Amino acid sequence: MCIDCGCSTQAQTDQHQHEPRTIRIEEDLLAKNKRLAADNRQLFASNHLLVLNLVSAPGSGKTSILEQTLADLKGELNFSVLEGDQQTTNDADRIAATGVPVKQINTGAGCHLDAHMVGHGVESFDLVETDILMIENVGNLVCPASFDLGEDHKVAVLSITEGEDKPVKYPLMFRECEAALLNKIDLLPYLDFDKQKAIDFIHQVHPQMPVFEISAKTGEGFDAWIEWLKNKIRQKA
Amino acid sequence: MCIDCGCSTQAQTDQHQHEPRTIRIEEDLLAKNKRLAADNRQLFASNHLLVLNLVSAPGSGKTSILEQTLADLKGELNFSVLEGDQQTTNDADRIAATGVPVKQINTGAGCHLDAHMVGHGVESFDLVETDILMIENVGNLVCPASFDLGEDHKVAVLSITEGEDKPVKYPLMFRECEAALLNKIDLLPYLDFDKQKAIDFIHQVHPQMPVFEISAKTGEGFDAWIEWLKNKIRQKA
Repeated sequence: MCIDCGCSTQAQTDQHQHEPRTIRIEEDLLAKNKRLAADNRQLFASNHLLVLNLVSAPGSGKTSILEQTLADLKGELNFSVLEGDQQTTNDADRIAATGVPVKQINTGAGCHLDAHMVGHGVESFDLVETDILMIENVGNLVCPASFDLGEDHKVAVLSITEGEDKPVKYPLMFRECEAALLNKIDLLPYLDFDKQKAIDFIHQVHPQMPVFEISAKTGEGFDAWIEWLKNKIRQKA
Repeated sequence: MCIDCGCSTQAQTDQHQHEPRTIRIEEDLLAKNKRLAADNRQLFASNHLLVLNLVSAPGSGKTSILEQTLADLKGELNFSVLEGDQQTTNDADRIAATGVPVKQINTGAGCHLDAHMVGHGVESFDLVETDILMIENVGNLVCPASFDLGEDHKVAVLSITEGEDKPVKYPLMFRECEAALLNKIDLLPYLDFDKQKAIDFIHQVHPQMPVFEISAKTGEGFDAWIEWLKNKIRQKA
């Protein structure tokens, strides 16, 4: 466990040695998170919720994907949304404009949501009436990978503007996820981006993970993603 | 200090209370980093180095900016480069291809470089012959903000594909930096991006910080950035 951050296992640098005392404490921290995540999971299960934890780099389009997903499933499935950011209520304001119940969690200087924040975050939601709880994590491809929030699945968003190699540079995150959304494909004509290479890198760290090629701006490719969501709902029933 | 990550001060969520024991230990951690950063700073000063710490979200173009900067100043200034990533030597391989001395630091599951890693990372460099040491941090707009590496300045890179509001969502990072590079401006015609709004957001969290509008792909806008670098070198002399 890294001395610098509760979200990591032993850092792989040859120079980087950690002290036993710190390792113990970080284990305590993750153990506590795991316990609270289990409480969340039980709460979600008793309310028959599908819970997704959206993770990505900053600016990959998580909120736009949520807006389009909520619009596509309006009147069909009921959502609640938790928004995680260091500062601002920008994302929660955008979701609130769709009429869906939403709560913003500001982590201050913190780098990820944890199970404790999520447990309190859902207190104001009517979970009996909710079919899908969407949690948009802080934009960070590292730390949120290590924190179970009690979700059913983590879903990674990768914008094609970020380059092909992010899955192999941040493998822990892509290994933890159950699906990947390759967003902003409307920009393909203007970038030197090798889509197949990106998908190959995703499958290198997580073989056979479904990858949905989408544009939250144009709505392109959302059918397959929506079908995946509906299928996950059916599996919960 | 956040229980979850050594890189943060008290999280600002109403639900999030921390235990004194953990706060003390995280303070120890940052104090240790501060001490090692001071050692680095002394080493760099004794070798008359300008040291920059490049920080950004994943995929904003830090390595491409380095490549273009090294090309523009080839034969004029001597560089050494430290590359930080969770995994892969992709970035170090790209820099090595330019002929500049480079070392890759893989942080494993870690979310940022720290002063300890940097102190060891420069051991193989000829610091007497180096004018500028460039440190490319792990792609992460949160955690690297809190770790002094002994650098002269942090420089933030913001890709216009990430949207305008990242400076207000991740204010700590933009407050810590001395300059900002607004990259990928070649994509302006294809995005709904309000450049002035992004610059206003940067100045909202860090008044008067210089912002250079560049494209590492086309080389556009590099003159002013290069001039800023040369000016910083002159100030060191």
